[in-house]
Amino acid sequence: MSTKLGIIGGGQLARMLGMAALPLGIDCQSYDPDSKACAGKIAPIFQGSFDDSDALQEFAAQVDLLTYEFENVHLQTLAALDKSSPIYPQLASLEISQHRLREKKLFNHLEIRTNAFESVKNTTDLALAISNINLPLVIKSVSGGYDGKHQWVLKTQHDVDAWILHRQQENWRGQNPGWIAEGWINFQREVSMIGVRNVRGEMKFYDLCENVHRQGILSHTINKINDPLQADAEHYVAKLMQHLQHVGILTVEFFVCDGRLIANEMAPRVHNTGHWTIEAAHTSQFENHLRAIMNFPLGETASTTQSVIINCIGGHPDIKNILNYPNLHWHDYTKPARPGRKVAHMTYCDKNEISEVKIRELLKLQIFNV
Amino acid sequence: MSTKLGIIGGGQLARMLGMAALPLGIDCQSYDPDSKACAGKIAPIFQGSFDDSDALQEFAAQVDLLTYEFENVHLQTLAALDKSSPIYPQLASLEISQHRLREKKLFNHLEIRTNAFESVKNTTDLALAISNINLPLVIKSVSGGYDGKHQWVLKTQHDVDAWILHRQQENWRGQNPGWIAEGWINFQREVSMIGVRNVRGEMKFYDLCENVHRQGILSHTINKINDPLQADAEHYVAKLMQHLQHVGILTVEFFVCDGRLIANEMAPRVHNTGHWTIEAAHTSQFENHLRAIMNFPLGETASTTQSVIINCIGGHPDIKNILNYPNLHWHDYTKPARPGRKVAHMTYCDKNEISEVKIRELLKLQIFNV
Repeated sequence: MSTKLGIIGGGQLARMLGMAALPLGIDCQSYDPDSKACAGKIAPIFQGSFDDSDALQEFAAQVDLLTYEFENVHLQTLAALDKSSPIYPQLASLEISQHRLREKKLFNHLEIRTNAFESVKNTTDLALAISNINLPLVIKSVSGGYDGKHQWVLKTQHDVDAWILHRQQENWRGQNPGWIAEGWINFQREVSMIGVRNVRGEMKFYDLCENVHRQGILSHTINKINDPLQADAEHYVAKLMQHLQHVGILTVEFFVCDGRLIANEMAPRVHNTGHWTIEAAHTSQFENHLRAIMNFPLGETASTTQSVIINCIGGHPDIKNILNYPNLHWHDYTKPARPGRKVAHMTYCDKNEISEVKIRELLKLQIFNV
Repeated sequence: MSTKLGIIGGGQLARMLGMAALPLGIDCQSYDPDSKACAGKIAPIFQGSFDDSDALQEFAAQVDLLTYEFENVHLQTLAALDKSSPIYPQLASLEISQHRLREKKLFNHLEIRTNAFESVKNTTDLALAISNINLPLVIKSVSGGYDGKHQWVLKTQHDVDAWILHRQQENWRGQNPGWIAEGWINFQREVSMIGVRNVRGEMKFYDLCENVHRQGILSHTINKINDPLQADAEHYVAKLMQHLQHVGILTVEFFVCDGRLIANEMAPRVHNTGHWTIEAAHTSQFENHLRAIMNFPLGETASTTQSVIINCIGGHPDIKNILNYPNLHWHDYTKPARPGRKVAHMTYCDKNEISEVKIRELLKLQIFNV
């Protein structure tokens, strides 16, 4: 009998989990509000909204265990499901990742360096934050928001006044449970570390990868074999996974500032910056996530080759141009294109280090329509 | 709009084609008598028997183009479909591969060396074959049969008499359109060459691989990088593909005798001996088959690592043992096990050459129940 795995969310991450699951004999279903969500080709969609606890309950009853590719589901709803079908990664990890303030506090508690931050719920808090951290500040809602949404940069007193006025107009509430004010960082680069831990506590780590964002959206990621910060990043992610007794993939994004890592945020799931592991690591992040939550031995994480992934945003390039390019692998999510939406990625592999010139050449193939 | 590809046959080859098709944005359906055939998870099954031309016609009408993973479909039936949806590889290749006598004659016509062979339709033919070739002979029906079925080895006059008696009892017909008698070969090894050609005539070839059969069933295949017979094998497969104006993967199995290739048979499709290309070549045979028939540029075929594939026949090993073995990749076809049935394969990858000792160690993980 195959194990039945339910995936909450039916997007491209669920789709790639489903593809990794098939050869392992794991049967996937996904849960999504959109009956045509792109995971459906491999993990049939159970249609339901993410706040419909009855539908989620019905979905959970059909599977042996649950995971998620989408983090913005109410914890209480998931906690109820967990009683019938175990959910991995566990809700402790999800709870932290859903709340930027708790996340930063945990980082600090575990002696993982962050930028300066303050909780902001009113004008007094903001004044204190400005006094402690200084302008410019980045203000983010403590929960919700991704790809740069729900974020504000306050550079001047004028920005501060405008932001306060906006908050006063909505009586300091809106739909928001509070804000976090963070010091502005002049980082040299952004990197992410993808770790995996299974039920019995075995841990493995992928090579650190370097991420380039444009307009708040991930443009491309370069697998950095032998990055000098590899050991530090592994150490931090190991501390988090052990503290949380995490099971599955855990991704942490860092800024690199003066040669040191500054933790930005974590995601308790397979990650957009890890798609290169499909072609360029012994075991992909998707397979290792499945191995971890199934309590199987983890697969080797070492890179087999140098690689770069390039996202296509808001449009599809001509597939013939992509396939004509040597050693470029195409991953179409078969989602309708709209501005700002990730619809595909491509992975370039090379035995030799991939130069800046090569990356610029590859970026000419990219569609980036936000 | 995604291209809709119909695959005739819904077994593991269709399943792996479906997995390669998904990231290319190709939508697969498969046609199989068994509604639970294992490709269904990724290429939904259209249920119908292989001799039901109406059902096949209905299937063909739903797709943009057709391919097949199963060769024993009547040519006339397929020829009728070809008028509505193009079939690749073209029926010229299929026609040859379905008939061992035509196949051997074509090999000879193209100066591809074979063992001695004769057509056998009656006692006189058989006597002539014995006189020309000498015992022992291998007799095969000219069409149908695989994995050693429909084959007889005649070593002695006693075997000859018994075989003739059997044929006389069925009035030299049975369900068989004739036989081919082939000279016995004391081969040193068996190898296969997998080539691919696209619509515009571009051709590429994988590294030669060495196949080990047990009881007529493929046990394991070793990817032989730098095999001294690589160039000869490529030359032969190129001649065949050009002659047939073949589009898609073409696999030719050879015996190696006194250091020379002797062509045994060809298959106009992705092949069991090419599964190592999923992990150990830049582009898998499945993706290149799709690229070829879609008239896309072909992907690089060079090996990225040494590899061995090991088939599991008639039973599943414990997945935890498989996943615990470093750099071993598991491919469960999720088919019910029965003796003699291929139900899974595993691929071992290594940067270094894979020793005989290592292969013996890996074979301890194999289930081989015929």
